[in-house]
Amino acid sequence: MMWAACGRLVGVWGSPLTPTFLYRNINTAVTVRMIFRQLFDRESCTYTYLLADDVSKEAVLIDPVIELAERDAQLVRELGLDLKYVMNTHVHADHITGTGLLKKLVPGCKSLLSKESGGVADVHVEHGETVSFGDQELEKLAFTGDALLIRGCGRTDFQEGSSEVLYDSVHSQIFTLPDDYLLYPAHDYTGHSVTTVAEEKDCNPRLTKSKEEFIDIMANLGLPYPDKIDEALPANKVCGLYNLPDNLAAKFEAE
Amino acid sequence: MMWAACGRLVGVWGSPLTPTFLYRNINTAVTVRMIFRQLFDRESCTYTYLLADDVSKEAVLIDPVIELAERDAQLVRELGLDLKYVMNTHVHADHITGTGLLKKLVPGCKSLLSKESGGVADVHVEHGETVSFGDQELEKLAFTGDALLIRGCGRTDFQEGSSEVLYDSVHSQIFTLPDDYLLYPAHDYTGHSVTTVAEEKDCNPRLTKSKEEFIDIMANLGLPYPDKIDEALPANKVCGLYNLPDNLAAKFEAE
Repeated sequence: MMWAACGRLVGVWGSPLTPTFLYRNINTAVTVRMIFRQLFDRESCTYTYLLADDVSKEAVLIDPVIELAERDAQLVRELGLDLKYVMNTHVHADHITGTGLLKKLVPGCKSLLSKESGGVADVHVEHGETVSFGDQELEKLAFTGDALLIRGCGRTDFQEGSSEVLYDSVHSQIFTLPDDYLLYPAHDYTGHSVTTVAEEKDCNPRLTKSKEEFIDIMANLGLPYPDKIDEALPANKVCGLYNLPDNLAAKFEAE
Repeated sequence: MMWAACGRLVGVWGSPLTPTFLYRNINTAVTVRMIFRQLFDRESCTYTYLLADDVSKEAVLIDPVIELAERDAQLVRELGLDLKYVMNTHVHADHITGTGLLKKLVPGCKSLLSKESGGVADVHVEHGETVSFGDQELEKLAFTGDALLIRGCGRTDFQEGSSEVLYDSVHSQIFTLPDDYLLYPAHDYTGHSVTTVAEEKDCNPRLTKSKEEFIDIMANLGLPYPDKIDEALPANKVCGLYNLPDNLAAKFEAE
């Protein structure tokens, strides 16, 4: 289930709303251990992921939450890691990213976003571009952002989402991965932490339907307007710290 | 980091409050995949663990929560598993175990508890006794119950807890494991999901102290009386369903 690899993250943009970071293996002679941590925010149910090469100590952090940036920075320090990139799978609508604050707490790390997102970042990546951080062991895993959730999927009713594009993205880019790939979502609201390609192809109540049925389901979810979207989107377009609303800036600048 | 093994869980009782389930490897010729799921209850911050042998499909569930028993039973069904044991690391004081309800939802599984706990169960195990469930790949991991939490530890101020016994248990039974062992706790209140022996030996703010300092810290935590203890303890002594308080019985019997 594992093989030697040069650690690379590959952006796979499912739709403007639903990109996915995916590992690709590039064989090297040395097998070393990958550090992998799944961290959780109880309020927004967001998963933050820390990945690092245990030899070079180079690390990346995916989808941090601003209220928990200090927790993440502390873990980076405790593990003696060299944080290269703080990256977001997309411009989040439900929480403010910890990216900006982490750039202050962990000097030297760079923010990373997809070019398509339209957001501000130190580094922009395009579809299929690789992000490397040391040589490290690869497990067969993918970070599915909001595209595919465990037995669910992200909303498509704001931020130029399209249920048709989402359906095609999941079927062409995630369901075509090997069945035993581990899939780590950006959120979970029921206490699950991980799933597999095989499970979602078999058990996902929405994405196992035909495209027509899926579009119909997504059009009739009747969900409320997202709680924090008006605060979160503008802040996340600028990686979560620069030009924050005054009340938030004061709160986090003070730390 | 992995080797072929006959999956066995070994009860390591740290104290009446703080037992630990630990994997031991017994070499076999065949390497097969272990299914491993960490599930979360946002209310009590309890982790529930599902482990299974991917070939025989024999499975065990550790520390389920009654409100989420249906989620756990559904996952067992979806993965096509044969649930052998529902086991608790200890008699919980903060939530009612899902064990009793799972015995109804998944006919054939047995409840399992330590003999020392004094609780009712189908199977009682003693210190060092093994619980086998199929042949399966072993990762170096241990379930530390409430004994060792990530950068913390369980309370010792009720249920006959003893900070001295807890300190000795952690130092003699957990800190003597290899440094790269992964440690999975029964709870986490800050969004962490896993740690290692090396990390806790280095970074645990309580257990890196001398025994005298530790005892002093634990005696002065000033924590409130646990919220659900009066409801949870009597129910968990009987594995969480038999003789439930009327309001809870009605709620869960109806399902």
